[in-house]
Amino acid sequence: MEPKIKIAVDAMGGENSPKKVIYGILENYKNNKDIIYNIFGDKEKILILLPKNFDKEVFNIIDTKNKILDTDSPLSAAKKGKDTSMWLTIQSVKNNDSDVAISAGNTGALFVISKLNLKMIENIDKPALSALWPNKNNFNVVLDLGANIECNNKNLVDFSIMGSSLFKSLYPNDEPVVALLNIGSEELKGNDIIKKAYQDLTNIKNKNFNFYGYVEGNQIMDGKVNVIVTDGFTGNIALKTAEGTANFIVKEFKKSMTSNFLGKLSGLINFANLNKIKKKLDPRLYNGAILIGLDSPVVKSHGSTDYIGFSNSLNVCVKIVRNNLIQKIKDNISK
Amino acid sequence: MEPKIKIAVDAMGGENSPKKVIYGILENYKNNKDIIYNIFGDKEKILILLPKNFDKEVFNIIDTKNKILDTDSPLSAAKKGKDTSMWLTIQSVKNNDSDVAISAGNTGALFVISKLNLKMIENIDKPALSALWPNKNNFNVVLDLGANIECNNKNLVDFSIMGSSLFKSLYPNDEPVVALLNIGSEELKGNDIIKKAYQDLTNIKNKNFNFYGYVEGNQIMDGKVNVIVTDGFTGNIALKTAEGTANFIVKEFKKSMTSNFLGKLSGLINFANLNKIKKKLDPRLYNGAILIGLDSPVVKSHGSTDYIGFSNSLNVCVKIVRNNLIQKIKDNISK
Repeated sequence: MEPKIKIAVDAMGGENSPKKVIYGILENYKNNKDIIYNIFGDKEKILILLPKNFDKEVFNIIDTKNKILDTDSPLSAAKKGKDTSMWLTIQSVKNNDSDVAISAGNTGALFVISKLNLKMIENIDKPALSALWPNKNNFNVVLDLGANIECNNKNLVDFSIMGSSLFKSLYPNDEPVVALLNIGSEELKGNDIIKKAYQDLTNIKNKNFNFYGYVEGNQIMDGKVNVIVTDGFTGNIALKTAEGTANFIVKEFKKSMTSNFLGKLSGLINFANLNKIKKKLDPRLYNGAILIGLDSPVVKSHGSTDYIGFSNSLNVCVKIVRNNLIQKIKDNISK
Repeated sequence: MEPKIKIAVDAMGGENSPKKVIYGILENYKNNKDIIYNIFGDKEKILILLPKNFDKEVFNIIDTKNKILDTDSPLSAAKKGKDTSMWLTIQSVKNNDSDVAISAGNTGALFVISKLNLKMIENIDKPALSALWPNKNNFNVVLDLGANIECNNKNLVDFSIMGSSLFKSLYPNDEPVVALLNIGSEELKGNDIIKKAYQDLTNIKNKNFNFYGYVEGNQIMDGKVNVIVTDGFTGNIALKTAEGTANFIVKEFKKSMTSNFLGKLSGLINFANLNKIKKKLDPRLYNGAILIGLDSPVVKSHGSTDYIGFSNSLNVCVKIVRNNLIQKIKDNISK
């Protein structure tokens, strides 16, 4: 029998917490019996949400009243001290009491507190924020999404290695194919840093991924590649632009569906079909950004997700522990 | 009576030219009688496409056999010499024989040939590629979309002035509201260049626009602002990511619409509604990037658009001449 996976959970982060966090844990536990949830937060509030006869060895509550707010700046969050639920969650992986940490709270605070407490993986200079982004076939791992506004070519190469290790942890049966996000597919375009990274990635031997070259923004969802590497500024803007575009179009479709009688009728008939698309585009499916590059994995669940989304983020935690994400990165970075 | 507007048209650029260009001109002429089209290209091929009794004073053909291919690099295109249809088109505005130049050909070549021939507007350091991007209410002007990979704060301020002048030329009844594209709406985020531009834009007095502050990628289509300013690398990736996302979603919708009998039925009923959305998202509607910052306006029609799209780009030409885009920029930059 494999050893149980221990997940450190910040119960107090994000909208509607601890309710969605605890309900997310209960949902997640339905299909994952080999897990221990180390839950940090206001015990009183958490206990109300758990069934009376809950298993205290599976749901291990560590009480703390202090918590970080979404409105805290990263610095003021860090200054709030070591008894916030977020800090204790990160401490738990630092002390090897847990294998992975998760929070739906303040992203900037989680990033800073993680960096303060955890060591970088050797030979990696900067951690990155990575996430899943749907493509024609399945999902891309995209990084960096905002942890580092400026990156050099070494960072982009590190991100390629880390991103493909993450992809392989999440989809063990597929081969990672890495691309650099650029403004032209010809070798000539892009800035000097990207061009250098292109050369470096072409020259690495024994790498844990195929290197495709450049992709442009309109090729992200083509399905030709599955790990997309960029600096945090560009990645953040690309991701949010895609979100905004998707929202815009879905709203326009909805408007047209309900704008007259025929539209309404058609909307009714098409309900099952629409739900299929919604399911494919449901952000809860790929909820959870992964802070990658530190010697323990830290997962950021979306602040506005619900308990289903939080449960899916817990699944991400399980996969990256079970498939040894950190060890994969260490093996590949030292090659 | 206003003087006639003279448009220099490169007839040989883009897919399916000169057919789409000439048909686009004929389409455009239906609603614009006060225009002279100076048409540069292969006279033999052009004449076949025009009606036999065409008005030679309106459709003024200047014969040249040489042309720039989509596969030419900007440099090799420029080296092809001064008798290419694109070069002659730009020369025509340089020599004041035309008020505005348009091509559906090679973007890089058009950019380089324009820069070689035309002067910058005084006090503007870099030209920018701008385009229209739909938002909730109408359209945004977005720039730069790829002309300048790296920009300083002065460039971003220039883009704000040029973008709002363009917006005002296209939508004379609306007020331009400028935003900087950034990764956070708080003043603290973003790189130093953006922060400096933010300060500069806050401090300018008597500006020809309202300054909103920062927007993130997911706010581009909100309709709160209508001029969005960014460097060419970020802008290009944002635009193409939006295109890719829109294509992905529309394809998924279509797939679901036709995947079973109910879907097909619903698709039929909903045809009129779907067409409404398509119309709103039809790229031909806002076809035409505008190269802005040079002392003559140069419009780039999309290479893959059809004659309707080309005709719409000609409408953009008409508006920016009639509403004095270049003079607006000159007035505002020197304030």
